[in-house]
Amino acid sequence: MAQEGGSPFLLSLFIFLFILSSLCDCHPHPAGSMGLMAAARAVSNHTARKVSDIAVEVADYTDVAKRIIDLAVFGAAQNRSHRRLADFTDTIGNRVSGSQNLEMAIKYMYNAMTQDGLDVHLEPVKIPHWVRGKESAEMIAPRAKGLAILGLGSSVGTPPEGIEAEVLVVQSFEELKRRASEATGRIVVFNQPFVSYEETVAYRAYGASEAAKVGAVATLIRSITPFSINSPHTGWQDYQDGVKRIPSACITIEDAELMWRMAQRGQKIVVRLTMGAKTLPDADSFNTVAEITGWEHPEQVVLLSGHLDSWDVGQGAMDDGGGAMISWEALSLIKDLGLRPRRTLRTVLWTAEEQGGVGAQQYYDLHKVNMSNFDLVMESDLGTFAPVALQFTGSDAARKVMAEVVKLLAPINTTTLEAYGEGTDISPWIRAGVPGASLHVADSRYFWFHHSEGDTMTVQDPQDMNLCSALWAVVAYVVADLQDMLPR
Amino acid sequence: MAQEGGSPFLLSLFIFLFILSSLCDCHPHPAGSMGLMAAARAVSNHTARKVSDIAVEVADYTDVAKRIIDLAVFGAAQNRSHRRLADFTDTIGNRVSGSQNLEMAIKYMYNAMTQDGLDVHLEPVKIPHWVRGKESAEMIAPRAKGLAILGLGSSVGTPPEGIEAEVLVVQSFEELKRRASEATGRIVVFNQPFVSYEETVAYRAYGASEAAKVGAVATLIRSITPFSINSPHTGWQDYQDGVKRIPSACITIEDAELMWRMAQRGQKIVVRLTMGAKTLPDADSFNTVAEITGWEHPEQVVLLSGHLDSWDVGQGAMDDGGGAMISWEALSLIKDLGLRPRRTLRTVLWTAEEQGGVGAQQYYDLHKVNMSNFDLVMESDLGTFAPVALQFTGSDAARKVMAEVVKLLAPINTTTLEAYGEGTDISPWIRAGVPGASLHVADSRYFWFHHSEGDTMTVQDPQDMNLCSALWAVVAYVVADLQDMLPR
Repeated sequence: MAQEGGSPFLLSLFIFLFILSSLCDCHPHPAGSMGLMAAARAVSNHTARKVSDIAVEVADYTDVAKRIIDLAVFGAAQNRSHRRLADFTDTIGNRVSGSQNLEMAIKYMYNAMTQDGLDVHLEPVKIPHWVRGKESAEMIAPRAKGLAILGLGSSVGTPPEGIEAEVLVVQSFEELKRRASEATGRIVVFNQPFVSYEETVAYRAYGASEAAKVGAVATLIRSITPFSINSPHTGWQDYQDGVKRIPSACITIEDAELMWRMAQRGQKIVVRLTMGAKTLPDADSFNTVAEITGWEHPEQVVLLSGHLDSWDVGQGAMDDGGGAMISWEALSLIKDLGLRPRRTLRTVLWTAEEQGGVGAQQYYDLHKVNMSNFDLVMESDLGTFAPVALQFTGSDAARKVMAEVVKLLAPINTTTLEAYGEGTDISPWIRAGVPGASLHVADSRYFWFHHSEGDTMTVQDPQDMNLCSALWAVVAYVVADLQDMLPR
Repeated sequence: MAQEGGSPFLLSLFIFLFILSSLCDCHPHPAGSMGLMAAARAVSNHTARKVSDIAVEVADYTDVAKRIIDLAVFGAAQNRSHRRLADFTDTIGNRVSGSQNLEMAIKYMYNAMTQDGLDVHLEPVKIPHWVRGKESAEMIAPRAKGLAILGLGSSVGTPPEGIEAEVLVVQSFEELKRRASEATGRIVVFNQPFVSYEETVAYRAYGASEAAKVGAVATLIRSITPFSINSPHTGWQDYQDGVKRIPSACITIEDAELMWRMAQRGQKIVVRLTMGAKTLPDADSFNTVAEITGWEHPEQVVLLSGHLDSWDVGQGAMDDGGGAMISWEALSLIKDLGLRPRRTLRTVLWTAEEQGGVGAQQYYDLHKVNMSNFDLVMESDLGTFAPVALQFTGSDAARKVMAEVVKLLAPINTTTLEAYGEGTDISPWIRAGVPGASLHVADSRYFWFHHSEGDTMTVQDPQDMNLCSALWAVVAYVVADLQDMLPR
């Protein structure tokens, strides 16, 4: 467990020192020595310094930012995060919650980050343990055709002999309601169009319960992706309390459209679905935590994160091996340069994100008592392709600070600060008012691979990961080293 | 069998009439009546008419071209080729050479085109009958991982228990030669980069024999595609005479790269490959031929074509259901408008193209005796996405005519004539000097789906197919109705 705490006694001292510091025009020394203004950190929330002061303070980090970027993009650390990700995912493979692979992954990362010279510890978490088992689906009428499927996380299985039933194809929840009388005893196929992940994922999440309410015996849901090469995508689904639990799997865009066309022609479609899925008792797991302890305020934290678990398909390289690796790499870069910020840099590799941010929620529940010491929480879980911007949620005053910080990224041309940093794993902190940041990358193809066999090292580019690592390290280091915590 | 023949007697008459016609300035009537100049057709090869005359003659087809385009793109035939393709491929599925599905497909198209009012007949062809059987591959070391594979057409199978062997990963034939001593008893994995289909397909075609020459027991070849969502692609492969026949399959880009990275790390890779593939005796099949007989020169032919067979994955919608459908649709459009050109329009739906243009080669062997009556041979086998241009191979004089013809496509903005029309199935005619044309579409994603489970109706767009059909019909009709055959 990491030290996290504050001291009411210091507060009065800091208020005094802050007033004192505001009388002089001294510039802080960015990396190493403690300026007077630094003492004001804890009380700055409601007494934000002038933007011009912040701009000057942040601008002093131009050189150190350039050193980090040089090391990551052109120097000895070039391609290291990509190589680490390849070594890790090639060795372990995918790492679904509750699996032995996830255990191996946590041990692997504990050892690797320890050998890297970081302070590493594990924090126990109980996590869901759903297993896919054997699964298959075949269209039997109007003609025989195998259907590529992936059962959905938390789904129940079918009887061993499978479920054979006529299909009802609908394009929306509304259509299902209109045609509720046709659903009894059927396998409901959802052929909803892809609008956006955020909107369309409702079909994966709630399709089974909505279909069960109108008497369906199973659901086959068009994968939540805008593009497919006959690729099924898995993911979590939620059963509603009091509603019968029926088996649920995703099918491909191609097969959903095929069955829709057949239904439009009035053809009777029959499918046999067999799923060995079941939920075992919760498993033991860990959030993996690595730190560089702050020299001045070790109890204050800038948190970087990605999740270590994945789905049980592909390699989990994109979701979220890349986010985990750049969150490690950022600390390595800072350490390699002999830097140590005022506050603690803490990388957390969450467990069981895919089951609904289970590891992250427990971490929040355990550590929220020290919330005032969380300066910034950062999450990379939307890919580590070419970075486009930093997304940020926080007060206007904090946004002004962050707007200065991203200017330091001019050498890699990613100086954009966007609204609404978010992410499954940091959202409890953001909702509680802690400033949050997430990495926005060129993600136009992200959902093509997401939760599918296509999530492999092949989609990752070393140079893109260099840039992501540099961005991640510069932002984390500078925020952790500013005299003041970000104003809330 | 269609009538094809010429008459030396007519030649003298035509020469006389041609000289006569060149003395007057009469303009031909494009659709219906026979002008004097038409008689010159057979002798025009060496006495090409002035470009300005051709331009005037072709320009007279502006209205009829517009009527064809209107019908296909905006009128009653809108989306018909797409609907026909969906009905066909949804009903039949894929149609590999020798399969019952291919037999069904031929019957289906025979009936459909007959009901459409075309003159349809079948021409028997003996075709290869390779069957995939059950197949699988697993990496056993350094860790267990299933490999997605597709065995290659003509490959032999493995023993029933499979072949388990250490892997040698190479990136090129040159590397294989350099490392020949390491190949004995190994499964050779080719991880060649994708350069272009034409260049890179050599690995699929010749990989097995090249590996067998240096003692390999099987080959796994990176699929011939620039993009993958863990998608294996099949295709034909050629065993060399006198070289041991070893099993050969394609793996995904992702798995080829994975094994290459593992090999670079010095890891020992072991794979078990099981393939039930075998070659059965040649099967009976047919080229499917539909015609609109020319009113003036029924023995002269403009040939439109696509192939009806596919691989045994996906729906064969793109390769080459689309090409077959627009070749039918072109005749439907012309018939629907009550048009009948001077020469015969003949749509040929080839069988067993994927096995090396088997149906087309036999067609050529049988009909080349009438080669002088083949005015233009057209093939669509590179997709029916948005049309970009017509590709054409022929004499300079013929090119000048075609350059005028494509101007008629101004309403759909596809007036580009490119060099080098080609295609597996029409190449024997082109090599023999017959003018040939092929359809060039916006094909940047063509090889993403080619020979994979991703070749389905989902990649086809109705409007794109309308445009392809319109282009195909206008070109075929006008060339078939011009007074002269294209000069050789």
